Amino acid sequence: MLKIAVAGGSGYGGLELISILLRHPNVEIKAVSSEQHAGIEVCRLYPHLRGIVDLRFSPMEEVLSSAADVLFLALPHGKAMHVVPKLPAELIVIDLSGDFRLHDPDEFEHYYGFPMTALESLPEFVYGLPEIGRDRLRGKHRVANPGCFATATILALYPLYRESWIDGSVYVDSKTGSSGAGRTPTPGTHHPRRSHSLFPYKPFAHQHLPEMRQVLANSDNPLIFQAHSTPLVRGIFASHYLKLKAPKTAPQIEELYADYYGREPFVRWIPGMPDSSSVEHSNYVDIAASTDGEHLIVWSTLDNLQKGAAGQAVQNMNILCGFEETTAIDQAPLFP
Amino acid sequence: MLKIAVAGGSGYGGLELISILLRHPNVEIKAVSSEQHAGIEVCRLYPHLRGIVDLRFSPMEEVLSSAADVLFLALPHGKAMHVVPKLPAELIVIDLSGDFRLHDPDEFEHYYGFPMTALESLPEFVYGLPEIGRDRLRGKHRVANPGCFATATILALYPLYRESWIDGSVYVDSKTGSSGAGRTPTPGTHHPRRSHSLFPYKPFAHQHLPEMRQVLANSDNPLIFQAHSTPLVRGIFASHYLKLKAPKTAPQIEELYADYYGREPFVRWIPGMPDSSSVEHSNYVDIAASTDGEHLIVWSTLDNLQKGAAGQAVQNMNILCGFEETTAIDQAPLFP
Amino acid sequence: MLKIAVAGGSGYGGLELISILLRHPNVEIKAVSSEQHAGIEVCRLYPHLRGIVDLRFSPMEEVLSSAADVLFLALPHGKAMHVVPKLPAELIVIDLSGDFRLHDPDEFEHYYGFPMTALESLPEFVYGLPEIGRDRLRGKHRVANPGCFATATILALYPLYRESWIDGSVYVDSKTGSSGAGRTPTPGTHHPRRSHSLFPYKPFAHQHLPEMRQVLANSDNPLIFQAHSTPLVRGIFASHYLKLKAPKTAPQIEELYADYYGREPFVRWIPGMPDSSSVEHSNYVDIAASTDGEHLIVWSTLDNLQKGAAGQAVQNMNILCGFEETTAIDQAPLFP
Amino acid sequence: MLKIAVAGGSGYGGLELISILLRHPNVEIKAVSSEQHAGIEVCRLYPHLRGIVDLRFSPMEEVLSSAADVLFLALPHGKAMHVVPKLPAELIVIDLSGDFRLHDPDEFEHYYGFPMTALESLPEFVYGLPEIGRDRLRGKHRVANPGCFATATILALYPLYRESWIDGSVYVDSKTGSSGAGRTPTPGTHHPRRSHSLFPYKPFAHQHLPEMRQVLANSDNPLIFQAHSTPLVRGIFASHYLKLKAPKTAPQIEELYADYYGREPFVRWIPGMPDSSSVEHSNYVDIAASTDGEHLIVWSTLDNLQKGAAGQAVQNMNILCGFEETTAIDQAPLFP
Repeated sequence: MLKIAVAGGSGYGGLELISILLRHPNVEIKAVSSEQHAGIEVCRLYPHLRGIVDLRFSPMEEVLSSAADVLFLALPHGKAMHVVPKLPAELIVIDLSGDFRLHDPDEFEHYYGFPMTALESLPEFVYGLPEIGRDRLRGKHRVANPGCFATATILALYPLYRESWIDGSVYVDSKTGSSGAGRTPTPGTHHPRRSHSLFPYKPFAHQHLPEMRQVLANSDNPLIFQAHSTPLVRGIFASHYLKLKAPKTAPQIEELYADYYGREPFVRWIPGMPDSSSVEHSNYVDIAASTDGEHLIVWSTLDNLQKGAAGQAVQNMNILCGFEETTAIDQAPLFP
Repeated sequence: MLKIAVAGGSGYGGLELISILLRHPNVEIKAVSSEQHAGIEVCRLYPHLRGIVDLRFSPMEEVLSSAADVLFLALPHGKAMHVVPKLPAELIVIDLSGDFRLHDPDEFEHYYGFPMTALESLPEFVYGLPEIGRDRLRGKHRVANPGCFATATILALYPLYRESWIDGSVYVDSKTGSSGAGRTPTPGTHHPRRSHSLFPYKPFAHQHLPEMRQVLANSDNPLIFQAHSTPLVRGIFASHYLKLKAPKTAPQIEELYADYYGREPFVRWIPGMPDSSSVEHSNYVDIAASTDGEHLIVWSTLDNLQKGAAGQAVQNMNILCGFEETTAIDQAPLFP
Repeated sequence: MLKIAVAGGSGYGGLELISILLRHPNVEIKAVSSEQHAGIEVCRLYPHLRGIVDLRFSPMEEVLSSAADVLFLALPHGKAMHVVPKLPAELIVIDLSGDFRLHDPDEFEHYYGFPMTALESLPEFVYGLPEIGRDRLRGKHRVANPGCFATATILALYPLYRESWIDGSVYVDSKTGSSGAGRTPTPGTHHPRRSHSLFPYKPFAHQHLPEMRQVLANSDNPLIFQAHSTPLVRGIFASHYLKLKAPKTAPQIEELYADYYGREPFVRWIPGMPDSSSVEHSNYVDIAASTDGEHLIVWSTLDNLQKGAAGQAVQNMNILCGFEETTAIDQAPLFP
Repeated sequence: MLKIAVAGGSGYGGLELISILLRHPNVEIKAVSSEQHAGIEVCRLYPHLRGIVDLRFSPMEEVLSSAADVLFLALPHGKAMHVVPKLPAELIVIDLSGDFRLHDPDEFEHYYGFPMTALESLPEFVYGLPEIGRDRLRGKHRVANPGCFATATILALYPLYRESWIDGSVYVDSKTGSSGAGRTPTPGTHHPRRSHSLFPYKPFAHQHLPEMRQVLANSDNPLIFQAHSTPLVRGIFASHYLKLKAPKTAPQIEELYADYYGREPFVRWIPGMPDSSSVEHSNYVDIAASTDGEHLIVWSTLDNLQKGAAGQAVQNMNILCGFEETTAIDQAPLFP
C-alpha cells in the first residue's frame, strides 16, 4: 500500500482527493493537513464522511514530515512554491495549484499578481495532462496538475492547433459551477444571488489563460478566454469558436478527434450536444463539434473537481506509480 | 381606457403581458384566449393571480372578435400568419412570435421549417426594437416584436456594425434560462436534469439568427450564434467576441455606446461586469465591454420575458399609442 | 411627501424597503444608513439599482439626525434598543428587528442570548401584525414589525387558538429560503451546499417562537416550532399539525378563515394546495387546510422579505400614516 | 456471476439500479426492458452512460424470458401485479413498486385507486427493510422493496413505537426532491416552477402512509403524514413530531437508537442536525433527534433513489443471494 499525504485537505479539491483515494485499492491516506482546522476531525467539517473517514486534520509540518510516498498539494495558489523546495527528491509530489504550471515567471507574476519564487524547482515539474503527453510523465516525481478551465480548453483545441486547421483568433466562452470558487463563502457564491445569476469575471486576465497558451503555443491563432459564473454547482462547460483554414465535413472533424483521443479512457466524442450533467462526479471529458463549413464550434465539458482537479491528480499519480491509469477514477457519471 | 385583447394568454409570454398590463393605468384587458384552457379561469392555471385577475380564457374567435383597440398575439410560431390577414387594418397588432420578423420568406422557411404564408401582410409590419428605430414605429398598426436572443445581441452589436469597427467574424455565445422554453414541460426543462445542466442547442440553426443578420446586415462580418440552456429561470446573458479593425480604448468604447444609447430609458451601460440577476423582472438591458486592445468582448443581459418579450411588446404599444414609453415597464429590477 | 429614513439599508430587509418605497407615491427616501458601506452608492452594492437609486449610504448618526417623518430600523437584532430611546417621540419608528417584539425581557434574553436594555421604551411599541389588531396600530408612533416565521404561523393558527378548536400540542414545521439568512455569506448559504441542502436549525430555540406564543397565548396548546433551511431563495412555507377538539368539515374550516380574514387585502384562502412560488415578490399570505376529521393540517406561505419583513413594515407605515393600506404593496406576485 | 434482468429500466429507479449494479463484482446485467424505448440503446436515453453501458432496452417479454437469476421490477405501480404470477418460483424477484407492499387489498385499493389483483402472490412477498427484520429476508425469493418516504419514516419511528415511548398522535412532515417524481416531465417538475417552489401534495392520502402504518402498527399512536415537493433533486428529509409518554434525556434517546441501529452499516446517528446533502448518492440514512423534555423531534434523511429505492433493492438482493450486504452500495456520500 502506497502511503499518501494531502496538504490542504479542507478545501473542495482536497475533499475530492480524499473521496477518490478512499476507493483506491493500492493506497492509504496517512495524513491530511489544514491550517485552519488542524486538530479537528475531517468528518466534523464534512459530515457526509461521518463513519467513513476517521482522520483528523494535522498541521502542515506533520503532513510534510509524514513518511508518505505521494504528497498531494491542494493548497491555495502561492503556497506550494514555499513547500516544494524543502521536499525530498524521491517523494512524488502532485501540485493542484497554479504554482508550477507556467514556465515563464514573468507570465506567472502578471497573471497571479505575485512572483514565482521557487525557480530552481520549476524544471522538475511536468504539466500533468496525460492525453497530450503521457510519456513525459513516466519516471517523474513532480507534477503540475492543470487548471480546470485549462484542461477543458486544451483538450478541445489541441488537435486543431497541432494540425493547423485554424484561421486567426480563437474565442473561448467557458462556464463554471460554484464549487470552482472553493469552500469559503463569498458574495459570488452566496446562494440568494448565485442561484439565479450568470456573470463573467476576469476578462483577458484569467490565470488559466497563459497555461492554455503555453501548451497550444501558436502566435497565428491568438486565444481569447472568458470565464462565466453560472448556477451549476459542479461543471465546466467550454464553447470554442473559430474559423477554419479550409472547409471540413463533420466526419473529418470526428476523425481528427478520434485520431487524437480514440484510445483515451477519459475522453468521449459526443455525436450531438454535450451536457455538463453527463460528466458529473466522473473523470470524463465530453467533446463535440459543429460546423457551417467555414466556422467551427467545439464544446468540451468536465467535472471541475474530478477531471478538472482531483480526478486528474489521481490519474497522474496512477501513471507515475505504475498503477492502471483508471484505478479509482473509473466510476460512471451520476445522473440525475 | 384602451381595450386590450391577448391571443395565446396561457403561455409565459401571455402571462407576463397580463402581469404588466395590470399595472398600466391607460389600458384594460378585455379578453385572453387559450386553445387548451378556454373556459377556465386564468387564476386556476396561474394560482399566483388568485384574487387579482378574474378573467377566464376564451376561445380564439372570441378574442379576435372582441372590440379591442390593441391585440397582442402571444401564440406559438406559425399561428399568427393565419390570424393577421383577417384582422381589421385599424386594429393595433403586436405579434410576439417570429412570423412577421423576417423580410425574406426563404430565410423564414429555412429557419422555421415551414413556409411563411401571409406574404401580403408582411410589408405592414415594423420590427419593434425601439432603440434602433423608434421613429419607424410611430403611426404604425403592426409590430413584429423581436426575439429575446435577437434583442440582446442586436443591441450589443448595433453600434459596432454601424460604425464598422469589426474585423471579420463575430461570435455570439448566448445563455438562456428555462422560462424561455415556455410553459409546457419537456425533457430539457425537467427539473432533475435542468437544475444542474448546461448544454447548447440548434448550432448554426437558431431562428433568431436571421433576425440578427437582417438588422446588422453586413457581409464583411459574418455572425455566428450559439444558444445554451442553463439552470437560470429568467434571463438571457449574451457574450459577443470579435476583433477590432483598429485598437480602441475603454473610454472610446464607452463613448460609442453612450452615443447610441445614452438617452435610452431601458439600456444601461455597466462599468464592470453585468449580471443576469441585475435585470430580473425589469425591462432593462445591461451592456458592458472589455478589450485587450485588439479584441473586444461585449456582454448584454436582459429578462427574456420582459425586454425579451412582453416588456418590449408593451414598450412598442406605448410608442404606437402615444403613451409615455416607460409606462408600466418602469419597475426596478428585483433582487435577490 | 413624507420623508423616510432607513437605518441599516444595506441588508436584504433594507434593500426590499427601498424597492417598495420607490413605488410609493406619498413618500420620499431621504437617507439610508450602513455602518459597513457608509459613503458608497447604494447602486454600487446593489448594481440592479443602477440608474434608479442615486442615494449613498450614510453613517447612522446622519440618518438619525435627518429630518425624517418615518424611520425604519432594519438593523441586526440588538441594535435598535440602543437607538430608539434617543429618538424624538413624534418620529414614527418601525423596527424590523426582534428588539421590541417581546413583552417579557427574560424571554428575550433566553431566546436572543443577550439582555433587552431599553425597557423604558418597550411599552411604546405595538406588535405590527395588522390582520390581528389593526386598530391597536392607529395613532401609534412605534411598531415592532413581526418576524417572518411568526407572521406565517400566527396568521395560520390565530383563528384556531381564538376559537379553541385545538386539542393538545401544535407542531409547526416551517421551511425558509436562503434570503432569510441575510446578505452576509455563511457556510449555510454557500451555493455549493445550499442549492442541494435541506436541514433544520435551532430546535426548540428559534427566537420567533416566543413571539408566536405571546400572541397565541394558550397553555392548553403548547406550540412546537421547527425551522428548516431549503434551496428556495425567497419564501416561508409553514405546515401546522394539530388535533381538533371536535371534528370539522372542510366548509366549516373555510368559513372560520373567511370570518377572520375574508376582508383582508393580503390574506388569500387557497382551495387546494398553496405554493411558495405563488406569493413571491408580493405581500400576500396564502393559507389552506386539510382535515381527516380528527386532525388538521394548515399551511401558510409568504415572501419572507415582503409580508415577512419590508412589505409588512410598509403596510404598518400606511396604517400609521393614514395612507391606503395597500399602497405600494399591492403588486401581483411574480411567476415564473 | 449472477445474471440480472431489470424490467422498467428507463425510469430513474431502473437507471439507479443499473448504475449500482455496474459496480457489483458478483453480478452481470443481461437485459433491461422499456416499453417506450425498446430497441434503442440505454446510452441514447441516458448519454452520461455513453461508452460505459452498451445494452439496448428490450421489450418486457424478452426480459422476463431471459435466463436471469434475479429480476428487478422497476415498473410504475400496478404493473408488477400482472407480471409476478407468471414468473418461476425459483427466480428472485425484487419489486420496487408498491404492488406487493400492503397486506390488506382494501387498503391498497383505497390508496392506489385500483384493485390489487395478484392476491395469490401476495403471501410470497417479504417487506424488504433489512434494519427492522433482516432474518425474515433470508431464503426468500420475493421482496417488496419499501417506498422512499416509508423507509425514512419507519426507520425514524420504529424504536419509539416498539418501546411505546409515544403519547398520542405522531406528525410526519416529509420533504422530497424532484427526482422522486420520475423521468417524465410534468407541471410539478417543470424547472421554471420547481426551482423556486415548495408545495404539499396528497394530504392524508399518500400511498406510503399505509405502508408505514402496517409496520408501526399501533392504534394508540395515529400517524399523520404529509409530503412536500421542494427544489432538491435528490433526497428525502423527514421531520417527525410527537409527545413523549415520559421525559427523556438526549443520552437516553441516543442510546435507544444505538440499541436498534448501532450495528447497522447504513444507519448513522448524527449528533446535531442532519442534512440531506450529507447522504446524496449513498445508501445511508442519517437520523438525529432533539427534545424539550416533553416533546420529541426526530429527523431522518436519505437519498430517495438509493436507500429509498435502488440502493435498498440491491441491499435486499445481497441478503437474499448471500453476498456481503454492503457490496456495491458502500460508496461514500458525494459532496458538494
